[in-house]
Amino acid sequence: MLHYKRTLKISMSQEELIVRIARNGWDVHIKRMDALLAALSDAQLDEEIAPGRNRGIYLLGHLIAVHDGLFDILGLGERLYPQLDSVYLSSPDKAGLDMLPAATLRKYWSEVNGRLTDRFSAMPASEWFMQHTHMSAEDFKKEPHRNKLSVLLSRTSHLGYHHGQLVLLKK
Amino acid sequence: MLHYKRTLKISMSQEELIVRIARNGWDVHIKRMDALLAALSDAQLDEEIAPGRNRGIYLLGHLIAVHDGLFDILGLGERLYPQLDSVYLSSPDKAGLDMLPAATLRKYWSEVNGRLTDRFSAMPASEWFMQHTHMSAEDFKKEPHRNKLSVLLSRTSHLGYHHGQLVLLKK
Repeated sequence: MLHYKRTLKISMSQEELIVRIARNGWDVHIKRMDALLAALSDAQLDEEIAPGRNRGIYLLGHLIAVHDGLFDILGLGERLYPQLDSVYLSSPDKAGLDMLPAATLRKYWSEVNGRLTDRFSAMPASEWFMQHTHMSAEDFKKEPHRNKLSVLLSRTSHLGYHHGQLVLLKK
Repeated sequence: MLHYKRTLKISMSQEELIVRIARNGWDVHIKRMDALLAALSDAQLDEEIAPGRNRGIYLLGHLIAVHDGLFDILGLGERLYPQLDSVYLSSPDKAGLDMLPAATLRKYWSEVNGRLTDRFSAMPASEWFMQHTHMSAEDFKKEPHRNKLSVLLSRTSHLGYHHGQLVLLKK
């Protein structure tokens, strides 16, 4: 870790500022989605966001699976619900697979994001500038901007993308 | 400017890395939206993203107005189309106001983003860590994370949010 810190001439206060910006963005998006989920009934989550499109419960499962994947890609320990991937990542909605009920998804959503927040808070700021686990040291030398922080920013946008869709379930 | 640099102990190479991450994210989102707009006909843009919801042309005008506002908030010079605000920011869709045709919006979209890219490229990396124009020096001292970079990240997520909606116009 010291090797990269020296290479990038990272100063701690600058790191902390950057991490604060990125984590604030993440937290804001999570809170907005929490508020949206609280405003939606289970019956509304069972509906399609638009005629013939994904259902709310599929998109919620998809977001949980992607966020759960962060434990892996950011090196934060074991995932909570890897079994979601086959239904909510590798398969489209309405593929005939067993879907979890909205109530279960709501619980998973809170658990995954709650644990992520705990792990993020325990990470030293410098850790965000390290390579993520899906990248080789070789590649990271060539593309040092593809660090853990860039993964968080990318997942924040991903959440925003599907939030823009889930909001259509509101009456 | 030097004052803030000293306060935050910013090192240039670190700055450049972060700015690269943020600008990459922005560029990726703009390119994805360009590709989506190329795939949508003007007739499709005239449609609602879901029954009773915003039309494509409203959301496109909204995105142009918000991006055009970046010239102002980031201190990058005169806005190109401030007249869009009253129709696409302050008013909802279908408020009975004159709407621009899709062809005009496509042109504005390219112009605004093209000029933004030019201005971004001309900005020294350190400039992104300065206060934006809608913030007082006083407030910025208290909340130095609310800088120009955080505005860009926030607008990137905003674009993602509406992209998730506009994609529903695809057949």
